[in-house]
Amino acid sequence: MPNVFDYAEVAKHNTAESCWVILYGAVYDVTDFLSEHPGGAKVILQLAGTDATEEYDPIHPPGILEENLKPEQKLGTINPDTLPATEKSPAETGDAVQDGAVDLESILNIDEIEEVATKQISRKAWAYYYSAGDDLVSKKFNNEVYRKILLRPRIFVDCVNCDTSTTFLGHKVKLPIYVSPAAMARLAHPDGEWGIAQACEQYGAMQVISQNASMTPEQIVKDSLEEGQVFGWQLYVQTERAKSEAILARMNKLPQIKFICLTLDAPVPGKREDDERSKNIGSNLPVRSAVQQDPSGSKTTTDSKTPEKAVGVGQSLFWGTAADLTWKTTLPWLAKHTGLPIVLKGVQTHEDAYLASLYAPQVKAIILSNHGGRALDTAPPAVHTLLEIRKYCPEVFDRIEVWVDGGIKRGTDVVKALCLGARGVGVGRAALFGLGAGGKEGVARVLEILKAETETCMRLLGVERIDQLGMQHINTRAVERDIYDGPAALERPSLASRIKARL
Amino acid sequence: MPNVFDYAEVAKHNTAESCWVILYGAVYDVTDFLSEHPGGAKVILQLAGTDATEEYDPIHPPGILEENLKPEQKLGTINPDTLPATEKSPAETGDAVQDGAVDLESILNIDEIEEVATKQISRKAWAYYYSAGDDLVSKKFNNEVYRKILLRPRIFVDCVNCDTSTTFLGHKVKLPIYVSPAAMARLAHPDGEWGIAQACEQYGAMQVISQNASMTPEQIVKDSLEEGQVFGWQLYVQTERAKSEAILARMNKLPQIKFICLTLDAPVPGKREDDERSKNIGSNLPVRSAVQQDPSGSKTTTDSKTPEKAVGVGQSLFWGTAADLTWKTTLPWLAKHTGLPIVLKGVQTHEDAYLASLYAPQVKAIILSNHGGRALDTAPPAVHTLLEIRKYCPEVFDRIEVWVDGGIKRGTDVVKALCLGARGVGVGRAALFGLGAGGKEGVARVLEILKAETETCMRLLGVERIDQLGMQHINTRAVERDIYDGPAALERPSLASRIKARL
Amino acid sequence: MPNVFDYAEVAKHNTAESCWVILYGAVYDVTDFLSEHPGGAKVILQLAGTDATEEYDPIHPPGILEENLKPEQKLGTINPDTLPATEKSPAETGDAVQDGAVDLESILNIDEIEEVATKQISRKAWAYYYSAGDDLVSKKFNNEVYRKILLRPRIFVDCVNCDTSTTFLGHKVKLPIYVSPAAMARLAHPDGEWGIAQACEQYGAMQVISQNASMTPEQIVKDSLEEGQVFGWQLYVQTERAKSEAILARMNKLPQIKFICLTLDAPVPGKREDDERSKNIGSNLPVRSAVQQDPSGSKTTTDSKTPEKAVGVGQSLFWGTAADLTWKTTLPWLAKHTGLPIVLKGVQTHEDAYLASLYAPQVKAIILSNHGGRALDTAPPAVHTLLEIRKYCPEVFDRIEVWVDGGIKRGTDVVKALCLGARGVGVGRAALFGLGAGGKEGVARVLEILKAETETCMRLLGVERIDQLGMQHINTRAVERDIYDGPAALERPSLASRIKARL
Amino acid sequence: MPNVFDYAEVAKHNTAESCWVILYGAVYDVTDFLSEHPGGAKVILQLAGTDATEEYDPIHPPGILEENLKPEQKLGTINPDTLPATEKSPAETGDAVQDGAVDLESILNIDEIEEVATKQISRKAWAYYYSAGDDLVSKKFNNEVYRKILLRPRIFVDCVNCDTSTTFLGHKVKLPIYVSPAAMARLAHPDGEWGIAQACEQYGAMQVISQNASMTPEQIVKDSLEEGQVFGWQLYVQTERAKSEAILARMNKLPQIKFICLTLDAPVPGKREDDERSKNIGSNLPVRSAVQQDPSGSKTTTDSKTPEKAVGVGQSLFWGTAADLTWKTTLPWLAKHTGLPIVLKGVQTHEDAYLASLYAPQVKAIILSNHGGRALDTAPPAVHTLLEIRKYCPEVFDRIEVWVDGGIKRGTDVVKALCLGARGVGVGRAALFGLGAGGKEGVARVLEILKAETETCMRLLGVERIDQLGMQHINTRAVERDIYDGPAALERPSLASRIKARL
Repeated sequence: MPNVFDYAEVAKHNTAESCWVILYGAVYDVTDFLSEHPGGAKVILQLAGTDATEEYDPIHPPGILEENLKPEQKLGTINPDTLPATEKSPAETGDAVQDGAVDLESILNIDEIEEVATKQISRKAWAYYYSAGDDLVSKKFNNEVYRKILLRPRIFVDCVNCDTSTTFLGHKVKLPIYVSPAAMARLAHPDGEWGIAQACEQYGAMQVISQNASMTPEQIVKDSLEEGQVFGWQLYVQTERAKSEAILARMNKLPQIKFICLTLDAPVPGKREDDERSKNIGSNLPVRSAVQQDPSGSKTTTDSKTPEKAVGVGQSLFWGTAADLTWKTTLPWLAKHTGLPIVLKGVQTHEDAYLASLYAPQVKAIILSNHGGRALDTAPPAVHTLLEIRKYCPEVFDRIEVWVDGGIKRGTDVVKALCLGARGVGVGRAALFGLGAGGKEGVARVLEILKAETETCMRLLGVERIDQLGMQHINTRAVERDIYDGPAALERPSLASRIKARL
Repeated sequence: MPNVFDYAEVAKHNTAESCWVILYGAVYDVTDFLSEHPGGAKVILQLAGTDATEEYDPIHPPGILEENLKPEQKLGTINPDTLPATEKSPAETGDAVQDGAVDLESILNIDEIEEVATKQISRKAWAYYYSAGDDLVSKKFNNEVYRKILLRPRIFVDCVNCDTSTTFLGHKVKLPIYVSPAAMARLAHPDGEWGIAQACEQYGAMQVISQNASMTPEQIVKDSLEEGQVFGWQLYVQTERAKSEAILARMNKLPQIKFICLTLDAPVPGKREDDERSKNIGSNLPVRSAVQQDPSGSKTTTDSKTPEKAVGVGQSLFWGTAADLTWKTTLPWLAKHTGLPIVLKGVQTHEDAYLASLYAPQVKAIILSNHGGRALDTAPPAVHTLLEIRKYCPEVFDRIEVWVDGGIKRGTDVVKALCLGARGVGVGRAALFGLGAGGKEGVARVLEILKAETETCMRLLGVERIDQLGMQHINTRAVERDIYDGPAALERPSLASRIKARL
Repeated sequence: MPNVFDYAEVAKHNTAESCWVILYGAVYDVTDFLSEHPGGAKVILQLAGTDATEEYDPIHPPGILEENLKPEQKLGTINPDTLPATEKSPAETGDAVQDGAVDLESILNIDEIEEVATKQISRKAWAYYYSAGDDLVSKKFNNEVYRKILLRPRIFVDCVNCDTSTTFLGHKVKLPIYVSPAAMARLAHPDGEWGIAQACEQYGAMQVISQNASMTPEQIVKDSLEEGQVFGWQLYVQTERAKSEAILARMNKLPQIKFICLTLDAPVPGKREDDERSKNIGSNLPVRSAVQQDPSGSKTTTDSKTPEKAVGVGQSLFWGTAADLTWKTTLPWLAKHTGLPIVLKGVQTHEDAYLASLYAPQVKAIILSNHGGRALDTAPPAVHTLLEIRKYCPEVFDRIEVWVDGGIKRGTDVVKALCLGARGVGVGRAALFGLGAGGKEGVARVLEILKAETETCMRLLGVERIDQLGMQHINTRAVERDIYDGPAALERPSLASRIKARL
Repeated sequence: MPNVFDYAEVAKHNTAESCWVILYGAVYDVTDFLSEHPGGAKVILQLAGTDATEEYDPIHPPGILEENLKPEQKLGTINPDTLPATEKSPAETGDAVQDGAVDLESILNIDEIEEVATKQISRKAWAYYYSAGDDLVSKKFNNEVYRKILLRPRIFVDCVNCDTSTTFLGHKVKLPIYVSPAAMARLAHPDGEWGIAQACEQYGAMQVISQNASMTPEQIVKDSLEEGQVFGWQLYVQTERAKSEAILARMNKLPQIKFICLTLDAPVPGKREDDERSKNIGSNLPVRSAVQQDPSGSKTTTDSKTPEKAVGVGQSLFWGTAADLTWKTTLPWLAKHTGLPIVLKGVQTHEDAYLASLYAPQVKAIILSNHGGRALDTAPPAVHTLLEIRKYCPEVFDRIEVWVDGGIKRGTDVVKALCLGARGVGVGRAALFGLGAGGKEGVARVLEILKAETETCMRLLGVERIDQLGMQHINTRAVERDIYDGPAALERPSLASRIKARL
């Protein structure tokens, strides 16, 4: 039954009417699947009639193919001798520095990790990781705002001991640093999300797994201890709720998953132009943006219909994501499908932080995040939101944990966030670039650097334990004057009543 | 009777005493017209004895020639074989990227539109569009001030629906974005202002036609629906009021023209050095500035007398413009000649905004504008004036509509202006560069990009309709501290009384 | 008697023991004069045994040679055939653009004037004009602070008429702009200070003549009208008071000199490194700084003893200048020697402005100046001092005139200074660079540009006369927050009493 | 007995099991010493089996070798003919500008000194001197903050006399400038710390000798007068207190040592990446960072165990330094071992300044210092701490002397620090770069420049003596708004009580 096809034969089926692709040496007829593809039909049609393995592999977890295609859609195998010579990636051709050749210990900081990784990984992977919204204002501001905060080192304090351990949601970790849900890790290195998990185990760090991981959650956690290693699962609620419910059921069964991280800062995709530009690198198709709507209608809706144009990796991931989540409907729905604590990611105002705190104990933590500057450009950095909460509703810190991400490049950044009241800080790009620089050892190097820098900073501040860090250790004058003081922030009672009324 | 002339014969008539020019293959004696030319005699004399078509065509609407010259001034036709080979423009020689060759969909933002257009259009057109006053401080500040305002995205809000429609002066439009009166569109592309109108129709956007349009108003609106498409007409009152009265009479007859936009921010021309420098490109004449006055007189007047020196495109357009407009005299005069609502363009202080609001209902809207930074350098951006009005006389927003222009490059800029109280925002250079990049499709691409960016921003703020945007969605701290707080702004009652006294 | 010497003979006399120089074809023995030279012996010794004309000429007024040397010190004449071929200056070799070749009308602003002049003049002249103290912080700040002030254009104001005329000390002038005392004008162009006077006459501008002018005051004013053209004379009081008394006597006889401008902002020379570096250009001597003092003494004095090291043009000019001036002694001494009004130049604090106002009517005006940033680096710009006076002792404006200089590059800068309360603004470098760009026509172009820009600015602000300009036309928020608010400024009564006590 | 070895024989002993090195022509077996080396075993192992003289010499004072090795560890001498040709340093090969060839008088400021020295000295020396923590934010800020302070020159003040002399701890000095404890001076020039002492004698400046000096204290002070020249000794307390006690005993015997400067701002080394990168220049070993800790333990301790990786010069110096100093234990211990006054270096908050003042009279001065930006990046500059003290606990200035270092490049910087209340300012890098530029004459040039600039500044401010400088001479508005105003600084009484409670 398994027929063997010549490439020339496959190449004829390159239209929406008859669309074949080669994956891992097998030939599939995906014509009927086109309309179901979460990433849209166009992405597939660009590869119709060709060997799509290289494009497909690093962004799809194993098993997905079998889950989505019927047996009869597998037509047979390709005769490998008929395949055209392809342009090889730098890694394949040996143009890239080989893994072993990168001396990770000679990399001294996170910026250098990015530099090394940028040379190692494909342009497409770089663009997906590097890109941020519009003009990258928020991405840059995320980091600069830490630089504007001054530290206040104390002298004559015994700093022989230094303990960076803390807890997240009651679970012990050795670092106040976790790896943020970062999608598509295998674009950077075959170790992928599993490699991140290995590095996290080595340093006692927590990891939040992206819903768009390029490996299955089971694969990612398989070499981790059931006890002592902490994972969370990122959820993008799907328009088809049943799909999300199935995912939740699966997570309920994995003991390493300690919480569900509901991502709220990107109900619609931001405009990441670097990513869009890279989409068709290697093909002859011009870059096409995601901005075309039906010009005749002043009112558009973001349903999951097939997009008409090719878009960046980032945009592809969004098709199918629900844009209709609300406090009133989504949290109760979640409670029905999982008993795991909920962490809300993407809070960017003190009002929403306050609101979230009213949903404790179902909601146990919030992550102040502007999605690494990838969603809405000129959105505020987490440092701003921390200062807003301190100013307008500090009781939030008593009710729920506050985590932050975005812009962390130094141990001093970690310490500053903790002084401001954050329980921990997430790093996303740093972990991915670590992976790109040296697989799991590269991620370990990132954690090693940040841990050592954090310890040095704590010692020079005269602080032995995380819980001793506070506002007396930092000078935030240069930032405070820019904190929001507009309407709704004026009186505290009205804050609560206004927000309640809004639900 | 129509004689045929050799070029050599025409070339002899190159002085103020006998000045001939070739236009569209015909030969004209314009000696008597020299002193009447709104752009001054010098501009014509520079072209005396030559084929002036290339210079003349893109900046004069059709019919103007016949209106201004007597039949006997048309001497005959030119023998085309005797014409010298001319230096061709990039577009003509094929050096420019051909229209069709520009893939508009690969252009992702307004800056890229400008980049592409800059390569396509003539140096003279670029200089006219790009130039601004003195050191371009205000032009740059117009945009930077938007970047300093932070957005405040809200989470857990259903953002499936998004509606960018609004009204201007009661007329429905699909976008809160309109095309500002931008002169000389045919310098960029033969589609000219008609092309802008076509793009506006496609996206339901309003257009304000420049008095210095390179096409007649009738040509511009000819393919637009009488109902559903909104145009305004920009008026520069002429020293010879009769000319302006004739224009108003013509507008009163065009049903698509819904209002008169009286431009007040440039009673005398600003100093646009890029424009001045480009004036004589292609000729061997050195650049000459407009700054020479009679040194012996400490008092000069800006009447419409023939300028002695060549000046930039911008300065040429100003000859004949009245500098003696006042609240007391001009608005009543206007009322006599048109029943159309009046929109005052160029308000730059809260005092003038307040004053304008006292003239409702004749005055129905004001446009906060520093003329794109083209008039007085270091004049405040519209964002400053919006914040001033909010602080000192917010009732202005209740009495009249407030529109803004200057510096808009992103959908987030549009949204920020609306949050601050603006009813809509105008784009001028973006539309012209869109035209330069790809004719009417280029303008459409500009509107498409801005519409999509605006929608993304609204959704990520958790806002479904324009009227929901407000100060709670933005953080203006970094701008507010620079807002005017000098005399006249100190007490509100004195504001009104002081201003009344001034009339 | 007039012997004729060969160059080889002269060249032997190149030491402090026997020092001959050639000047204008004559040979002088200046051995005895070495210790008397106001610029120090070293400057002369560097040229000992050579033709010093090129160095000497542009920085010494005619007649100075005869005044200072005895007849017998003139030894004879040089045999021109024996002179070595010298390196010619760009102007001499024709490498420089010829005067006529510079199209002054194509120069659109003050920065371009400087650019053109920089190419025309010698490196030494450039260094002297361009240089400022230390790191040029104050020089740059002088200009930037104007850029931070925003203008507030008013609309619907008749701006047909515009009158830039005003008065200084009661004398009518056509411009609120004057030429600051700028030394060594002939370094830039043979027209020198006389050329500046000619340009000032053309535009009705005032001129303050530098004590270090390269022409005699009589030469400078010789072609000016006795009535209607206003000059001041800058005085650096000499350690040998008799010299200054002789100068004052000479000024009392020149009817065009309307006041004495006593310069106080540079009792010791600032450190102008560009100038120091240029000093020996053309010679093989290394650059030597003026910073060497007797290291064994912690206490040094600035008497007029011969400096041991070569220094820049600026430092040379200072030898002989008195550093012991005081309110108590110097003003009475001045009153004894001249009845002319006194203008104090170099006020940089509101305390000194207030103090000066107590000396009216002898003192009729002050000039807020940090010496073009040439004296003490990080000294405040005049804009700061204007705002300080407004805040702490505004009555100063009622008692005396307040002039400013430093950083003026645009008509908008002129207008802003006037809005802040200045009666007029001085330009120094602009005039010198104008001279360098095109002699007296170049200076005229500078005035023409500034006049036109000032008028445009006034018109767009809706202002017809200078006296209408005020704080309501500018927004100084971005500057005000940096104004001094330390001790002595806290209470007004204590200001006066503290200052009085100090005298 | 003294055997003669061939290089090939020595080269075999290049492991931790058998480690020989050649020093000054002798062969040593340092195997047993590896674990005792204050700089760690790795540094030695990198040079095992080779001639280590070039690496060893400039960073170890004479006599240290004999002190630490037993006689039997000296195995014999090397046969010089068998030594491999080594890569010579620029100075050795003549590639560097020879000392005599640098015309120190042509160097006009401190930046130029650094420029010249950078060309002269080895890359390793440059890296050690230039490097600072992390991203060099504090290092740059140290200087920029001086530039933001404006000076307030006064006029009409007799400035003939100017006296820069002052006292430190009651000892007369001719300058308010001292040389900070700067390690490893012989890396820059053979004159080393002795050369600095010579220059200080010439200018009457104080010198604080680094504990890590490359010469013995006796050598450094040997040519200095017992009376009239002031030295301090910097102490890094060693984990093995007996070592420090021995040092103190030695200092008690040196009459020129007037105080002990206890360095507290670097109990653990900062992260100086430039220094780390340079460590192995010249060898083939890759750069290795100091950041590796045992990843399995969340708690690390900084004991003096042998580090596993090579580190920069700076890190090497830290091994053995105690991290367990406290107010309660260390000052009494010091009192037992020396009667010399104590100066505490590294105060960075007003709280610690206040605390130190409670320990007078044992503590006689504090040095506000962030270790030249070399310890904790984004630590505050001394100017901030000065302003904090002025605001929250000005009585500190009455109780103890306050010295500052970091960022001083100009005489105006010196004067500004004095105006803010500092008794004197230290320069570290400037002295080392002076040494690199020209040995002791280079250091003298640095002092000469700073003295002359300081005098010019004082004169132009109208100030004759150091003690006349005050807050009325500077405008600190641009800095004040960034000064810490967080908790603990809010009320004064609580300051003292809180701090007391903490002891």
